[in-house]
Amino acid sequence: MNQDYIKSDHWSIIEEGFNAERVKSSESLFSIGNGAMGQRANFEENYSGETFQGSYIAGVYYPDKTRVGWWKNGYPEYFAKVLNAPNWIGINVFINNEPLDLNTCKEISDFKRELNMQEGWYKRTFKATLPNTIKVEVAITRFLSLDIDEVGAISYSIKVINQDANVKFVPYLDSGITNEDSNWDDKFWNTTVVEDFENRAFITSHTMKTNFKVCTFMQANAVYKDNEIIATKGDSSETFISAIIEKEVEKGEEITLYKFGGYTVSTNHENGKLQEAANIALDKASALGFHKLLEKQKNAWASIWEMSDISILGDVKAQQAIRFNIFQLNQTYLGTDSRLNIGPKGFTGEKYGGSTYWDTEAYCIPFYMATKDQQVARKLLKYRYNHLEKAIENAKKLGFVKGAALYPMVTMNGEECHNEWEITFEEIHRNGAIAFAIYNYYRYTGDYSYIPEMGLEVLIGISRFWQQRANFSSAKEKYVILGVTGPNEYENNVNNNWYTNYIAKWCLDFTTAQLQKVKEEYAEEYARIIDKTAVSDAEIKDWKTVAGKMYFPYSEENNVYLQQDGFLDKELIKVSNLDTSQRPINQKWSWDRILRSPYIKQADILQGFYFFEDHFTQEELEKHFDFYEPFTVHESSLSPCVHSIQAAKLGRMGQAYNFYLRTSRLDLDDYNKEVEEGLHITSMAGTWMSIVEGFGGMRIQDNALSFIPQIPEQWSSYSFKLNFRNTIITVTVNTKETSFSILGDQEVTIQVNHKKVVLIPGEVVKVTN
Amino acid sequence: MNQDYIKSDHWSIIEEGFNAERVKSSESLFSIGNGAMGQRANFEENYSGETFQGSYIAGVYYPDKTRVGWWKNGYPEYFAKVLNAPNWIGINVFINNEPLDLNTCKEISDFKRELNMQEGWYKRTFKATLPNTIKVEVAITRFLSLDIDEVGAISYSIKVINQDANVKFVPYLDSGITNEDSNWDDKFWNTTVVEDFENRAFITSHTMKTNFKVCTFMQANAVYKDNEIIATKGDSSETFISAIIEKEVEKGEEITLYKFGGYTVSTNHENGKLQEAANIALDKASALGFHKLLEKQKNAWASIWEMSDISILGDVKAQQAIRFNIFQLNQTYLGTDSRLNIGPKGFTGEKYGGSTYWDTEAYCIPFYMATKDQQVARKLLKYRYNHLEKAIENAKKLGFVKGAALYPMVTMNGEECHNEWEITFEEIHRNGAIAFAIYNYYRYTGDYSYIPEMGLEVLIGISRFWQQRANFSSAKEKYVILGVTGPNEYENNVNNNWYTNYIAKWCLDFTTAQLQKVKEEYAEEYARIIDKTAVSDAEIKDWKTVAGKMYFPYSEENNVYLQQDGFLDKELIKVSNLDTSQRPINQKWSWDRILRSPYIKQADILQGFYFFEDHFTQEELEKHFDFYEPFTVHESSLSPCVHSIQAAKLGRMGQAYNFYLRTSRLDLDDYNKEVEEGLHITSMAGTWMSIVEGFGGMRIQDNALSFIPQIPEQWSSYSFKLNFRNTIITVTVNTKETSFSILGDQEVTIQVNHKKVVLIPGEVVKVTN
Repeated sequence: MNQDYIKSDHWSIIEEGFNAERVKSSESLFSIGNGAMGQRANFEENYSGETFQGSYIAGVYYPDKTRVGWWKNGYPEYFAKVLNAPNWIGINVFINNEPLDLNTCKEISDFKRELNMQEGWYKRTFKATLPNTIKVEVAITRFLSLDIDEVGAISYSIKVINQDANVKFVPYLDSGITNEDSNWDDKFWNTTVVEDFENRAFITSHTMKTNFKVCTFMQANAVYKDNEIIATKGDSSETFISAIIEKEVEKGEEITLYKFGGYTVSTNHENGKLQEAANIALDKASALGFHKLLEKQKNAWASIWEMSDISILGDVKAQQAIRFNIFQLNQTYLGTDSRLNIGPKGFTGEKYGGSTYWDTEAYCIPFYMATKDQQVARKLLKYRYNHLEKAIENAKKLGFVKGAALYPMVTMNGEECHNEWEITFEEIHRNGAIAFAIYNYYRYTGDYSYIPEMGLEVLIGISRFWQQRANFSSAKEKYVILGVTGPNEYENNVNNNWYTNYIAKWCLDFTTAQLQKVKEEYAEEYARIIDKTAVSDAEIKDWKTVAGKMYFPYSEENNVYLQQDGFLDKELIKVSNLDTSQRPINQKWSWDRILRSPYIKQADILQGFYFFEDHFTQEELEKHFDFYEPFTVHESSLSPCVHSIQAAKLGRMGQAYNFYLRTSRLDLDDYNKEVEEGLHITSMAGTWMSIVEGFGGMRIQDNALSFIPQIPEQWSSYSFKLNFRNTIITVTVNTKETSFSILGDQEVTIQVNHKKVVLIPGEVVKVTN
Repeated sequence: MNQDYIKSDHWSIIEEGFNAERVKSSESLFSIGNGAMGQRANFEENYSGETFQGSYIAGVYYPDKTRVGWWKNGYPEYFAKVLNAPNWIGINVFINNEPLDLNTCKEISDFKRELNMQEGWYKRTFKATLPNTIKVEVAITRFLSLDIDEVGAISYSIKVINQDANVKFVPYLDSGITNEDSNWDDKFWNTTVVEDFENRAFITSHTMKTNFKVCTFMQANAVYKDNEIIATKGDSSETFISAIIEKEVEKGEEITLYKFGGYTVSTNHENGKLQEAANIALDKASALGFHKLLEKQKNAWASIWEMSDISILGDVKAQQAIRFNIFQLNQTYLGTDSRLNIGPKGFTGEKYGGSTYWDTEAYCIPFYMATKDQQVARKLLKYRYNHLEKAIENAKKLGFVKGAALYPMVTMNGEECHNEWEITFEEIHRNGAIAFAIYNYYRYTGDYSYIPEMGLEVLIGISRFWQQRANFSSAKEKYVILGVTGPNEYENNVNNNWYTNYIAKWCLDFTTAQLQKVKEEYAEEYARIIDKTAVSDAEIKDWKTVAGKMYFPYSEENNVYLQQDGFLDKELIKVSNLDTSQRPINQKWSWDRILRSPYIKQADILQGFYFFEDHFTQEELEKHFDFYEPFTVHESSLSPCVHSIQAAKLGRMGQAYNFYLRTSRLDLDDYNKEVEEGLHITSMAGTWMSIVEGFGGMRIQDNALSFIPQIPEQWSSYSFKLNFRNTIITVTVNTKETSFSILGDQEVTIQVNHKKVVLIPGEVVKVTN
């Protein structure tokens, strides 16, 4: 039922054969990015068939007008939109004046795409017969440099097969682009300068309203029989500029165009110096040349993989999938810039305005903590600290007072971008995940300093919100939280969502405890924070009262917490008894029917059991898993990974493996029938968790790493590395035993299957599973 | 705090003095209509100040693109929009070539508007000094004929005061109009013909998509010193045509332009004969001339008032208000066309797409039943019968089966026009009101025939919906209705809204009973209905099961039904303890805050107590009134009337009177600060109910009229008439007694204060209050 045209391979994503119906899907799957920019795998040459064009620059967005049916107070005026950026990859090609267009060729053979994840490049090769009967063999390699992250490089080779022919390349820049999801056909870019000097061209444009200035640039030359050909001036317009490289190519010979291009952006350069910066970037790139830059690319990716690879033996589809997930996460965010975050579609599509969701805190931070320097996770935390003022403003707009903070559901600059009341105003559990990430960072890295420096202020704002958002129910004699949407977005405006109430209570308790600890251990910081936030003893007392009397809906009959008040009034038909013609329900059912059904989009109570595992027994987990999973439709990309981890914990490896496949190959196999729109980047971190925390059973216990390794029966072994407090630990699990080794010069004590194990540098320790 | 510039008067709405800030408000308040068309009180001459232009044709709409943030399955593709129609009232005026424009005059004095409700005309008079220092005295009278309902008439008189002057009238037609609420600046009208013959002009245009063809027409001439002046050709364009009447007018003399205009529409005339029909209409009007047509207008309104007037002595504001309400209802809908209905803004604005809400069944039908021939109410019922197929389609779109019918929340042609999930999909109680109106019609008129002929099919469709929409809760061992929005729209997606559950149960019971009665008494119709609907005994059994085991949330502690599950978990702070700066909450609070608050927009449980009064004791009513009214913010125009009736029933006449004023002068005093957008037409029927059912205590008891008359202490007497089963009964209540008299030749037995009273034609019966 799902797509399966991607060839299995350990290190590459491969498509063979040209199929116009797969173009948009492959444009997503073969996307490339380098953290600073990225683009869908659009063809360089003109393609008159169906395509979804997209190039994106990290942090460049547009505040589009909010579109709603009936306006409600508190809605954001604007909606930060991921913007399609000027196109620098374009290279139109003419063979004897006939345009090369895969949509009009008489014949196409040997079409192949390869995304080489090991080395970080994307290659497309094909043979084509043009309408004028000329046959060509084409090979294009493209990459976005990790070393010079403002620059991408393309080599575009054409061999003419059946006769001599004139080959004309028209490399161009184009800022006359639009967004697919434009609400009112608005223009988002204003172009001010279009100019060229020698073999370079530049378009300077800025976004409307936000006024991000961008210089899009290119440089082109070609090589034919070892001779360099310099580009000459081409056409230009108000939003377009091109160069021309033309050559009579002999039958059987090949001509290769090299194009460097990219963006310099006002967020990184002085105003008015963007073109100068572009020239510097091009100087650097052309000093190295295409091939040397590609060598550097391979080395840079090798060093990323060195730390973050997970190898799997015996299951090439699983292997390909996890590498695809890790590759995409690294293409999206490398942790070098605390102004950036991990957009749910990365650089692969426009869908979902804004770049930052609770996905970052709930799913992505563990991956970045374990596979990068801990500064990267700290940057992600700091991103929220930088947005604290805006979160306080946001809460104020909704009627909260005294510095209560409600972080936005979706954001680009700290302001809310989402505008459905049931999400924007009610999916407030996101505040909890942001607090949890502060705890999680400390738990994993052991670095407490973030809390007195920044985290505590965030925690205070969040706790103020929870205390005000809860109210005392005289009927229940408990504090209740009414009118929320939990992680399971297939319920809206419910009362006492267990997950929300639980994380709210936890936030209040955790904040109270941290205030005490900071008071005792960081007197100076404490004084500063008290001064800045004016948090009072009375307020802390209120937090304790609310936390102490929080209500949790519970079913005595079933011995489970209820997802929310009234859950048991539903018609409790299990997913397995639903006719498959009704699935996915989000495509088949009207919203009211989804809402009154028991069906769960993604882990909700089980998400709480994941975060707060230690608060519950294995038996409780099992009861809740068995009660809720049968009602779970997993129609969120974030669902299978948590279920995979929980199933593994329950020793149900078959189920865990199926959930793993579903999360890891979500896009490759297009489970949700929407890969055309872009990839699900943030859930890819959940895939990593499925292996490391699920199969590997990695946890932090008693301030130390702990493992309970298992292995799916389909695998012969798997291996991953963790950066734990600056020690690199390699873990290899096979069907019988697990090997551990560490780099460095210090011993590390870990737990394996609840027993202490001491790891000594240079030694491999093996523990039977 | 509310506006108070309207002068008190028994029969007229009067504004004195020109104030540019009141123009849009007065444009609403002085609107005129004749059931077939209507328009805001826009100036005929050009006005360069702030104005909201609006002319509307009954039944002519446009299916605009639905605008939502995030699309949900089941949303209507299109949204029927009340369309601004071509302008036929326009008359530009030039004095010595200087345009007369109230926004640019040097001085304006003696400005007065009068809407004479007794006679059905609107007059505007003023003196103005133009920028060129010429002083004029102007008087314009306009009305939309009740006799020739395609025609309106204007007399426009100008006297030049301080010198001789050239007066030029440019009467025109303009189809180049737009809607204020256009989503995407779309063009809704396409004009095909613009032409003139002698002193007549015509524009033929059609609506996009719906293809309603409309011929907008006019005829103009003028009289100066008893001599007629015929118009000459003026400018024209693709969407505009004008005529010119120009005269040198002597100082102190007056020239009067007479303009007839209006629309002929393809819904009423054969295709291609619209212009011919327009000529016929103009022939009729001009044969009579302006003055005779106005005489007929006065007679027509006299006959409407003869039946529907309510006179109040001792309280001119209350008197003016009730007449304003009755006048507007009659301007909006006269009951002559079963394709039409009562739009919530009538012909006074664009807001709210579609024309038909549950307002018609819940509020308007009692007014039309009692003040018109009973055929009018029958037509309103038939309107829903005609839409039954569409209601079944609508339910099918939401996943219901077997002929279940869900009537739309808002409609123009039977299709849903609303597109917020919490309303469209969840405010399903509307289905109940539609069934209730069938019962109410029979109860009041005694005409059972509608049920076997049409009503029973509607009831079956509705009952099928309720049975499928309810589900059995194993936890409660009752049927529950989950995920609804009740009449109180300040709660969304709640479980077991008492009103919804109650009316659902009632529908099931009522339908079952009617099936039985029709089976016994109308065998032929029964066979037809069974054949058509395939309703089975098993199905009826299911209805009985659901009705018999319906769940009603109840608080033992408070001895009241709960508005919905969980109501008592709210922070129950009474409205009287809310800071006034927080009111109205729909303008001050974000939606989530409104939702989790206990505040009630309009009667919800009390609406059920109103519909099903006999099911509850006076003590129960009192308990529920005292429990819920203190949480009610009355931010719906439909709220005060029901509360006025209930307060009167509880003998709380002071409170009842205040609610009466609030409902009756809602627009005149602009309680909701939005009268600029148009009037609240449907709630005006509630005002009528406040007097007749509230103060007069009119009910149907034991198949007879019954009264428990009371009178507010501010009044010395009030009087109303009822058409009860073709007998006209006049009821006059003063502070001591109530007089009854009847027309016709048959005795009628009624109840007054629970005692039988026999009314004999020609006699006045007096009963002490």
